[in-house]
Amino acid sequence: MMGAMGRWQGGASERLRDAALGLFLTQGYDGTTVAEIAAAADLTERTFFRHFADKREVLFVDGDEFERVFLGGLPDQADDPMTLIVGALDGAAGLFPEERRPWSRARQSVIAANHALQERELLKMSSLAVALTRALTARGVDAASAALAAETGVTVFRTSFALWVAEGERRTFKEIQNAVLARLQALLA
Amino acid sequence: MMGAMGRWQGGASERLRDAALGLFLTQGYDGTTVAEIAAAADLTERTFFRHFADKREVLFVDGDEFERVFLGGLPDQADDPMTLIVGALDGAAGLFPEERRPWSRARQSVIAANHALQERELLKMSSLAVALTRALTARGVDAASAALAAETGVTVFRTSFALWVAEGERRTFKEIQNAVLARLQALLA
Repeated sequence: MMGAMGRWQGGASERLRDAALGLFLTQGYDGTTVAEIAAAADLTERTFFRHFADKREVLFVDGDEFERVFLGGLPDQADDPMTLIVGALDGAAGLFPEERRPWSRARQSVIAANHALQERELLKMSSLAVALTRALTARGVDAASAALAAETGVTVFRTSFALWVAEGERRTFKEIQNAVLARLQALLA
Repeated sequence: MMGAMGRWQGGASERLRDAALGLFLTQGYDGTTVAEIAAAADLTERTFFRHFADKREVLFVDGDEFERVFLGGLPDQADDPMTLIVGALDGAAGLFPEERRPWSRARQSVIAANHALQERELLKMSSLAVALTRALTARGVDAASAALAAETGVTVFRTSFALWVAEGERRTFKEIQNAVLARLQALLA
């Protein structure tokens, strides 16, 4: 796993993220200090705080980019709301190439072990649903359909992500997401 | 609105809830103290804390009952996961009779104005999705379908609730929920 994560090493930010994730995995999130993260990355605490507001943000630093990628995938217009959402999902799949899977898997296991981190992740997903709802209403979709389509898109994304990081999973993110969407359509048919 | 909320008056718990909601609406949630709530209900702070752990729980006191009603509506078995979820949704609709609408509408406007309360509401919905997912896997549904169906059920519920408390809405909760489910099916068809 470290080999794969090593691909992210380079700048100070990436070194700090790798060091933090390694420590979170071995000694727990709550049991890790910023001082230890900085020391493990051979950097100062001051450098840490130039890159991250706090320890938690090491795991959530891409929040803005995360939403931007979903919104960037949204077509300018489409005949129906779900076509818009599928565009957003396809765009987001690009955030999760194979070389990122070990990092995402490790991050997920840290988050799954910590209630406060789960809440933070939940808020991130809720914020994404709000942003997608707004983008759909801006494209003329009525409020209730926009909220339904956006929340459904987030559900498909979350389910796909959980499958993608599962041990032994080999399918690409996009393959999984297409399968999950098809399964949901079958469930509702 | 106060006339309708008055139907909930009776026991100390109901008096405290009505007093609290009235104060939250007129002077804001953050600007209201437990002492003021108790005084407005003509009761002591000590009585307040016999009924509620804190000020916030006035708005969330039915959390356990809330989940129980969803789970109570779940059939013991069904041919497909969404039939199970529709059973849960139908059960939950019983929580929202016409005489509760003014209270729910007022509660919603208090929550919409406060970020921390919105987070609490979000956690309540997430907890519901987890409970429904578990109940579905216990009935033999595979993990991914269970999560998809449960999250979709919560999305339908949340969307329906938002419509039900909207100003001027006259349809019953169940009518709205059926319409929302049909709309979601159409979106995914």
